[in-house]
Amino acid sequence: MNFLETIATKRDGRKNTNGQLDALARGAADGSIPDYQLSAWLMAAYLNGLDPQETADLTLAMAESGERLDLTGLPKPWVDKHSTGGVGDKTTLVVLPILAACGLTMVKMSGRGLGITGGTIDKLESVPGFRTDLTPEEMVAQAKRIGIALSGQTPRLAPADKALYALRDVTGTVASIPLITASILSKKIAGGADTVLLDVKSGSGAFMKTLPEAEALARSLVDTGKLCGLKVSAVITDMNQPLGMAVGNALEVQEALASLRPPLSLPPSPKGAGRGGFSRFLELCLDLAGHALEVVGKGDRSTAEEAIASGKALAKAREWFAAQGGDLDSFMSNPPQSPIVRSVMYQGSPGFLNRIDANIVGEVVIKLGGGRAVKTDPIDPSVGVIVSQGVGNRIEKGQPLFEVHARDESSFGFATEKLLSSVEVSPEPTQAIDPILKIVH
Amino acid sequence: MNFLETIATKRDGRKNTNGQLDALARGAADGSIPDYQLSAWLMAAYLNGLDPQETADLTLAMAESGERLDLTGLPKPWVDKHSTGGVGDKTTLVVLPILAACGLTMVKMSGRGLGITGGTIDKLESVPGFRTDLTPEEMVAQAKRIGIALSGQTPRLAPADKALYALRDVTGTVASIPLITASILSKKIAGGADTVLLDVKSGSGAFMKTLPEAEALARSLVDTGKLCGLKVSAVITDMNQPLGMAVGNALEVQEALASLRPPLSLPPSPKGAGRGGFSRFLELCLDLAGHALEVVGKGDRSTAEEAIASGKALAKAREWFAAQGGDLDSFMSNPPQSPIVRSVMYQGSPGFLNRIDANIVGEVVIKLGGGRAVKTDPIDPSVGVIVSQGVGNRIEKGQPLFEVHARDESSFGFATEKLLSSVEVSPEPTQAIDPILKIVH
Repeated sequence: MNFLETIATKRDGRKNTNGQLDALARGAADGSIPDYQLSAWLMAAYLNGLDPQETADLTLAMAESGERLDLTGLPKPWVDKHSTGGVGDKTTLVVLPILAACGLTMVKMSGRGLGITGGTIDKLESVPGFRTDLTPEEMVAQAKRIGIALSGQTPRLAPADKALYALRDVTGTVASIPLITASILSKKIAGGADTVLLDVKSGSGAFMKTLPEAEALARSLVDTGKLCGLKVSAVITDMNQPLGMAVGNALEVQEALASLRPPLSLPPSPKGAGRGGFSRFLELCLDLAGHALEVVGKGDRSTAEEAIASGKALAKAREWFAAQGGDLDSFMSNPPQSPIVRSVMYQGSPGFLNRIDANIVGEVVIKLGGGRAVKTDPIDPSVGVIVSQGVGNRIEKGQPLFEVHARDESSFGFATEKLLSSVEVSPEPTQAIDPILKIVH
Repeated sequence: MNFLETIATKRDGRKNTNGQLDALARGAADGSIPDYQLSAWLMAAYLNGLDPQETADLTLAMAESGERLDLTGLPKPWVDKHSTGGVGDKTTLVVLPILAACGLTMVKMSGRGLGITGGTIDKLESVPGFRTDLTPEEMVAQAKRIGIALSGQTPRLAPADKALYALRDVTGTVASIPLITASILSKKIAGGADTVLLDVKSGSGAFMKTLPEAEALARSLVDTGKLCGLKVSAVITDMNQPLGMAVGNALEVQEALASLRPPLSLPPSPKGAGRGGFSRFLELCLDLAGHALEVVGKGDRSTAEEAIASGKALAKAREWFAAQGGDLDSFMSNPPQSPIVRSVMYQGSPGFLNRIDANIVGEVVIKLGGGRAVKTDPIDPSVGVIVSQGVGNRIEKGQPLFEVHARDESSFGFATEKLLSSVEVSPEPTQAIDPILKIVH
């Protein structure tokens, strides 16, 4: 198989065969195709696209480029949940224990944060002792024992994705829907899932800034997943405002654990505007979990609510953290703490808080030290921002807008100025935006 | 300067700045930009193109990526001649001595053959002792002494071209007119030329198969050359039939030297159909040289004819070969010789020989061992094909069509079969095709 032919085919806008894509994935995984040839193909694929069949062929080829978790014997369905990433997005930490508590087998590989979108692995590593480097054998064994396992990416599963993703990152070929699709789904398939719940974020704090872009990605994920033999459903959720109150690693883990703590108490309807970020986040987690339960025929949103109200979801989270070495009690009683914790007050005329720009809040958290501008940046788990008000709230001068957790005065000062620029206050309240924008089957 | 930005600009169909292209050429030359990033840019440039200004900026940046020959003090004009390559194309070996004999300073870097197109360096290396590895200093000194110097590419001149060409070759990004243009002209500028004569081949035995393709390349070369401050003229010449009689390295050198030998004797007009390949080749050389002399205001075709008729051109060739260590007398009296030299006879009904497919003849010479399928193939200087008949000739059964110079019976047999498939004989004579199809200023 001559890889130059594979490049030329895609360069000329023709279709790559299953055989070509299989050789590509194997060559990327074992290093036998040089990076400069892979990157030429990646740019050709970025510019000329892959059709649904090519995307599915590439996905399966990447999934088969390494080992594959075998969940045989574990209770079905074998569910993976994936979010495309956003600001304050800690849904995995809530939805996984809920679904595991409802009897689903949850096995998942997660990534680290880059840019404004945080990463589940970074968040979990703010818990002392939490191991994010489970081997494939440990993942299966743990899922068998307690129904839930989560690890960082291992090079043993879908190694082609690791190689291709690293190249896309340095060759300007990240933002390709077929390549994103293959990257996401190949890891799910290698991780043993038969059912995938996708949370595609849309808005200023997400990779997909507009609803049509998010819909295109969701459509590609669902169609490709089906061609690959997966049961898959995608939910497009709003990421114009930060999700929940907390943005920052340890702060987000605390908010997630608070969401799981019984009794379940949500303010009365309507959802959306005027509701605090905390309850908006919890609503979204319950909707996502309920949707997943419906897709696999194991219940609905009330089943998810009951898992929290009964304390089973929190117990599952405790079991999960303990299984991976995380000391939850020590974390809860003595979480990582920044030297400066100080509120930022609203100083303008009274009105309705109609916008909190998620992108700006995300950038502030990077500057505080809680995210990465480049991959090698270290993470400070303690820093971050608490969004004290929900979008739609009435606000007056002197009321707290944010609580900043900072390492020093200079980063606090920078954060304050930027955060104040992230809010818009108007005389009239805005239209409520439901956290779930659309469901794509 | 972040090269990712340069890639993204071209990927998105926007224009790269002079600064970006300058950094690209320097990074390619010194290896500081990794190959996988260069190849992503190359594919984006292949698919989205470069406009004339970008092409000129890239050309100059590549020319300035290494040393530059300084011809100060040598008689002007400083002329380089370039052919895009064809089957049996030994015009450089004739045109250079003619023009040097007419007082022009001829300094040139040439390449090796790849695929069906031969390379001047391979041809010259069939002459015992001929050095094709002159240093830049040796090239300038020799040109000062005798007005002519030719060497293989040195990594000291236009090193960015060497790096980018090697990558294009393995990433499917060779066939881009702006990239071809920058590659050709950057070497001319680094080689010190102020005037460039371009011979763009068009037809089955050339890289550009059709006249519109050849015109597009010629137009790009002329326009870019002008933007770079060169005096440049392009002649589009026919490459549907092999050029001249000889195809094969030593055979072509012999034909070139025969063309230079006085007295100048050409059959009467018209040119084209019915004329033997030898005179068709000589006509082309005289046309090209005459055109070059007109462009620089130093004469015309009759000046070129006089250079041959007077013996000055052959004397210049002799001086040139001697200066680079080539033993012309020994080569002429005892040229490399294949074990099998045998004619291939015409076996069909009488008619007019209306086509000899240059592409097939080129492929036969590769198979005989006279060309390269891949870069590392060794070359046998002795093998090749003599085309015994001119297109348009009347032919009958039993007349010789070709003379094959082969290493063994099996390659002779293969060559015979393929060569017979390259000819078309019809009851009516074909329209004559002038060797010069078009001149682009």
